Order: sequence, then C-alpha cells, then structure tokens
Amino acid sequence: MVMHFKPAPGSALMAEKKSLITMTTDFGEADYFVPAMKGVIYSINPSVEIVNLTHSIPPHDIHAAAFTLMCCYRDFPRDTIHLVVVDPGVGSARRPIMVMTDDYKFIGPDNGVFSYIYQRCQVNRVVHFTVEHYFRQPVSTTFHGRDVFAPCAAYISKLVEWRIMGEEISDPIRFNTPMPAVVSDKQIRGAVIHVDRFGNLITNITPAELTEERIRAGARVRIGKHEASRVLTHFAEANPNELFAYFGSAGFLELAISRQSAARIVEARRGVEVEISVP
Amino acid sequence: MVMHFKPAPGSALMAEKKSLITMTTDFGEADYFVPAMKGVIYSINPSVEIVNLTHSIPPHDIHAAAFTLMCCYRDFPRDTIHLVVVDPGVGSARRPIMVMTDDYKFIGPDNGVFSYIYQRCQVNRVVHFTVEHYFRQPVSTTFHGRDVFAPCAAYISKLVEWRIMGEEISDPIRFNTPMPAVVSDKQIRGAVIHVDRFGNLITNITPAELTEERIRAGARVRIGKHEASRVLTHFAEANPNELFAYFGSAGFLELAISRQSAARIVEARRGVEVEISVP
Amino acid sequence: MVMHFKPAPGSALMAEKKSLITMTTDFGEADYFVPAMKGVIYSINPSVEIVNLTHSIPPHDIHAAAFTLMCCYRDFPRDTIHLVVVDPGVGSARRPIMVMTDDYKFIGPDNGVFSYIYQRCQVNRVVHFTVEHYFRQPVSTTFHGRDVFAPCAAYISKLVEWRIMGEEISDPIRFNTPMPAVVSDKQIRGAVIHVDRFGNLITNITPAELTEERIRAGARVRIGKHEASRVLTHFAEANPNELFAYFGSAGFLELAISRQSAARIVEARRGVEVEISVP
Repeated sequence: MVMHFKPAPGSALMAEKKSLITMTTDFGEADYFVPAMKGVIYSINPSVEIVNLTHSIPPHDIHAAAFTLMCCYRDFPRDTIHLVVVDPGVGSARRPIMVMTDDYKFIGPDNGVFSYIYQRCQVNRVVHFTVEHYFRQPVSTTFHGRDVFAPCAAYISKLVEWRIMGEEISDPIRFNTPMPAVVSDKQIRGAVIHVDRFGNLITNITPAELTEERIRAGARVRIGKHEASRVLTHFAEANPNELFAYFGSAGFLELAISRQSAARIVEARRGVEVEISVP
Repeated sequence: MVMHFKPAPGSALMAEKKSLITMTTDFGEADYFVPAMKGVIYSINPSVEIVNLTHSIPPHDIHAAAFTLMCCYRDFPRDTIHLVVVDPGVGSARRPIMVMTDDYKFIGPDNGVFSYIYQRCQVNRVVHFTVEHYFRQPVSTTFHGRDVFAPCAAYISKLVEWRIMGEEISDPIRFNTPMPAVVSDKQIRGAVIHVDRFGNLITNITPAELTEERIRAGARVRIGKHEASRVLTHFAEANPNELFAYFGSAGFLELAISRQSAARIVEARRGVEVEISVP
Repeated sequence: MVMHFKPAPGSALMAEKKSLITMTTDFGEADYFVPAMKGVIYSINPSVEIVNLTHSIPPHDIHAAAFTLMCCYRDFPRDTIHLVVVDPGVGSARRPIMVMTDDYKFIGPDNGVFSYIYQRCQVNRVVHFTVEHYFRQPVSTTFHGRDVFAPCAAYISKLVEWRIMGEEISDPIRFNTPMPAVVSDKQIRGAVIHVDRFGNLITNITPAELTEERIRAGARVRIGKHEASRVLTHFAEANPNELFAYFGSAGFLELAISRQSAARIVEARRGVEVEISVP
C-alpha cells in the first residue's frame, strides 16, 4: 500500500505537526470512561490532538481491536501514538506496554492486542511501563485506561524518554495470527480473521495469494460446505442470496451475502478455514 | 437567519483561525472507515481541525444526509469545508465533486447530496476532481471516502488550487427539492422533506409562508386525511395523542405527536404533501 | 484524589494551553444538534478545543448528566469549561447559568444539573446569562443549546468578562444529593445515586465511610431484602449470580451481579437506601 502523501521529514509541513494520539477502546461513549482518559491526557499535554479510532469494540474482544487497528493505523501520520485499551485483565499482573516501530508507537495492555503489529512491522523495541511516577495516583484496580495508559501515552507524546518510564522486554504476548499458505499453484489455504457487524467474513487472503491471474483462471473459494459463486470487484454486482467473495478496502478477501449475515448462514466464525482451488 | 457573530474578515480573530473540515457519513463509528479517513486527512494536513457532523446517516440515504447538512452548515465558520460521504455509487462512474460558494466548500459524490446547497446558495463553481495525483494510491473500488474524498478535502484545506485538481462542470446531479407554494392568500402547499428518528415530520414550510398573521387567523395544517390540532410554539404544550404543528429549530414547520411517531400514525413519509388553509 | 500532574500556573506547559470546552448533552450524535453547537462555538472562538464528554445522556435525565459530569470533570485541565445541555425546560423561564470555581467553569441550564458541583466544590459565583447580545439571533424556543449555551460558552472561552454577560445570583436550583451517614461505628447509611447501563448500582458511599478496617471487620452491605456476599477488590473475582460490592473507578461503592442487571434483580433504583453494618 503506497502512502505517497506522507511529508518527508524536515519538510515545511512537519513544522506544523502536532502530536497525535488515537484511542481504541471497548468503553462505548455513554459513560465517563473515555472523557476521563481524554481529560488526563490534556492535563499532561494540552497541545496534543486526540482522535477516536473507535470506542465500539465489543467488550473484551482483543481480536476485534487488533483487527480494527491493523486496518487503519498506517493511514495516520508518522509518529502517531496509537493507544488501545481493551483490557479484560485490568488489575491483574498483565503488563502495560509500548511497541515502537520506525513510524508509530502503540500503547496498551500486553494481552496480544498488538499481534498484527508484531507480524507486519519491524518492531524496534517493546517497553514495559514500570515507573509509577508517570501513573495517575492513586491507581485504581479497575480503570488503568485512565490511571496508567492515558498518562503514559500523554508523557510519551511530550517526548519523555521511554528509558525513564520503564524497561525493555523481549517476550510480549502474541496470539496466533494465521498466515495464508499457497500450498501449490492450484491451492491456497487461509482463515477467517474477523467477522464484522454485518456478518461479513474477512479472511487473511490478499491479492498476493489470490492473484488476478488465478481469479481469471476460475479460482473457487470454499468455506466449510459452502462455496462462493464468484469473486466480484463490486459489492453492488451481487445477486440476492448469493454468497460471493471480493477484496475489501482493508486489502483482504471477504465473503458476504447482500443484506444478510454470511457468518450466520455459512455458520462460520473467526478461525474457520477458507480454501481456494484453481482449476 | 442572522449570523451576527461571524468575525469580519481581517479582524484579529481571523488570524487564529485554523482550517476546519466537517465529516458527514453513513459509516457509523464502530469500524475503521472513519478513522482511516481522518488519518489520511491528518497525513496531508496535520494542522487541520476535523469535526464530526454525523456518521449515523442511515446507510445510503442521500436525502437524509442532504437534510442534516442543510440544517447546520451555516453554523460553521466561513471557509469551513463540508465533506459528505454517503456514496451508494462508489466504484461506478459518478463524479467526485466540490461545490464552492462564497462562504463554504462542499466535497462529496455527485449524487444529489448537495441539492439543497444548489437551491439555497449562490454557487460560484462546481469542480470535478479528476487528477489522480491527489488521490490515495491505489484507489480501491469500495472506499473512495478514504482514497478520493478525504485526500481531496485535505489538499483543498491546504489551499491547493482547484484548477490543478480537476475541472469545472455545469451539470451536477440534483434531486427535486420541492419548494413550498403560496397558492393564494388562503392556501399554502408544501411537502414533507425529512422524517427524523422520532417519527417527526419535517416539512419545507417556513415562517415566510406560514406567517404569524396566518397562524393568528386560524391556519389549519392538513396531511393526508389528518389535520394538526394547532400550531404550537412549544413542544411541551402538546396534549397526549395530539397531532400538532410547530416550527422546529431548523426553521421548518414540523408535525409531531408527543412521545409517538407521527410518521407511523399519519402514515406519511418523505414527499407527502402538506396543505395549509387559512379561513 | 491526587491530581499530581497538573502543571503549576506559570510553567512552560501553560503557555501551550488552549481553551478547552467539554460537551455533555442528551442529543445523541445522529442529528444536526451537536454539530450546530460546535459550529457556533468555532465561529466565535476558532482556536478553542471541543471535547465530547458524552451525548448519550438518557433524554431529559438531569441526574444522569450530573452524575456523569461528577465522575470526570476533575480529570480535565484547570480552566476547562464544562458545557452541559440536558434541558427539559427549554423555552420556559429557567435560567441559563455559569457556575465558577477556582478550577473550572460550568455552563448550562439552572435545573439542578450542577448539584454535585455545589456540594463538592468551593463555588465562587453563579452567573445568570441575561445579555442577549451574546446569544445567537434569533433565539429559538426549542434549541437553546445552539442559541444560548454554545455562544455563551464560546465567549467565556475567549475570556469575555462575566459581568458584561449577566448578573450574579444566589439561588441556583439544586436537587437533593444525599450524603452517606456514619450513624455509629457499627452502622453506615447511604443511597443509590446512579444506575449505569449495565444495571450496576452506584452508591454515594466512599472509602471514607466504608474503610478498609471496617471491610476487614466483616462489614455487610444490604439493599432492600438483599445482601451483598462480600466486598471485592476486583470485579473478576465474582461468582456467577453473586450480588457483590466493590469500589468502582469513580470512587464509590457499587453493587453488581456479573453479566446481569443488579438493578433488575434487586429491584432497586436511584434513591434506594443502602445500609452497612459492621459486626
């Protein structure tokens, strides 16, 4: 994916740049949780810009948060801090961490939510935030979003050195992020990695595996006992009740049925295998 | 509507002014679509301010987007860019356009979503964005919000000249925006232009047609077989089960029933005629 | 609650500080109401930062707005303006007011929504906005959020003197905010002050009343005919179907049942008494 419009370091544009923090949580927007976090961030760094990625991750769904982040983190400017608080283990010993790549910093609980980042980026360092001086006091047992993650993100946005906020670790937790396999020229094996709220099934298969050539050769996409009728380029071309495949805007092959939940009809969920055969 | 607090050009206030982009979409806020657009905009113009108008337009409802935009675009500062992505024709040949008035720029698909702007504003120019250099590459077939509209809005906010981004057109698509007709001193004909999520019926009739004098003379408001009992100045004055009329905060005559859906009870929807007779 | 990271007045950090307005409403985010208010604010003060506290207060629920504000207003930087528009009396004679404390300004209708602020803060002054010059003209009867509160908040954020916008009053409306009572060393009486959307019952009892010592001594928490099994430090320790108590992140004792609505099962709502006895 070409990001041709990122300004070159040192360009005039960089001068205007403000610090940017995105927020991904499962808190919803009806309660005091999200504004409490924003208030804490602005109290530490009044000149930061905060952007909602989403606060509608299904409660405790680490995989959904990981997927949603993967689909858009690269669209943000270099040096953006991506703060993710989907944290079923709050209050336990799970570590608050920061994952550092050349372009971004990712801050959140060490529960696998950054698994796709480990898989796809050159990670320079993972830091465990240990220095309580940078936490909001007293630290509650139930709301580390406000008391740990928000203040750490704010201090990092002020360019506080990670060395004085914590220590490097080498064993962050990652969940299995299955890679598609080109078994042979005639066979590709992938898996469903996300089910969106419309019931569309997003797989890990990209145009690198299911090439245009293979589509033209009549590639058939199977999931369980079902088979997609064809690979479309437009959602709008689909017929009623037709299970079809297409490449979505996140770059993955998706399986869908117009105005219906493919997940329900095909009885599939995250992890289910998808098989492609080329005649 | 008097906008008395807009700073005069050249005043001290103008100096502090930052570029403002509002966003109106039917994407909801649960997925990666809206943050991807924001990331693209910030990557091109880090100093812009982005304001959600709403992301809860019913899917593909161009009329609802047009109405919601009409109700508040004038409340924003001069030079605000209003970006609207309700785009059922994404991937087809429909044109990405910019509508320019003295005070605002409107960017979105050429599908009629700016019909009220054409009707109500002095439009100086409509531009068709044609120069792919200003799009995010590669342009997907399903997400022009991110790949076409967001980057074009961002470049426009950086004062890139429209002449190098596209070409002027003279035939933008507009849907029928019925105007109320004062048939005689005794009769006004209007229509329902929006049904809100409470079932209130918003008409195109304003105080210019249904004057205070005509209300005092006992004007009667009819829709289908039903008649509003009276024209109230306060929603709170209504009795239970009473179909009443009042001027809403957007400046239009509305028909409502307290705590019930007037649309359902009156069996009315967008386009239905409303007739006012003055004794 | 220690707010140790607020910059001292005069520090370098203060220099970067921009004016901040939070918004709490019951308007939802689907309609033109919230963006109209934001547009009005930006038109008056283009350099202000607007932060959503929440727009999902249940319609007309002044108590819920008061509670949500209480839980996070202190997390925002000093001099933040907290704008609250939950206004069932719009169009009536209820006064638009501003409550001024050393650290914050609160702007909204005089309907009790600031009752917790009166109870917990040193209030320096309550101002009734009376000068129509600072309102958006014409003032509608139904949308003072846009026409009165938003412009007043914007002018205050520009440091317009309250003296030229209104006059001091001494009788703002406050609703009863019951305080917990330590009846004896063995008995504490409190009340439910909020029911959240999961049905958790938030009481007004804090660790100042239900001390760690009393918990260790075996304090028992009763509501109606029910008794909490124990006081947990972690939500996650609870057993299925167990009614338990714990201190939530807002600093109050809460009663909950995992994955169920305690409010429904215990048949309790706001105002219900909670009694603690220590053996």
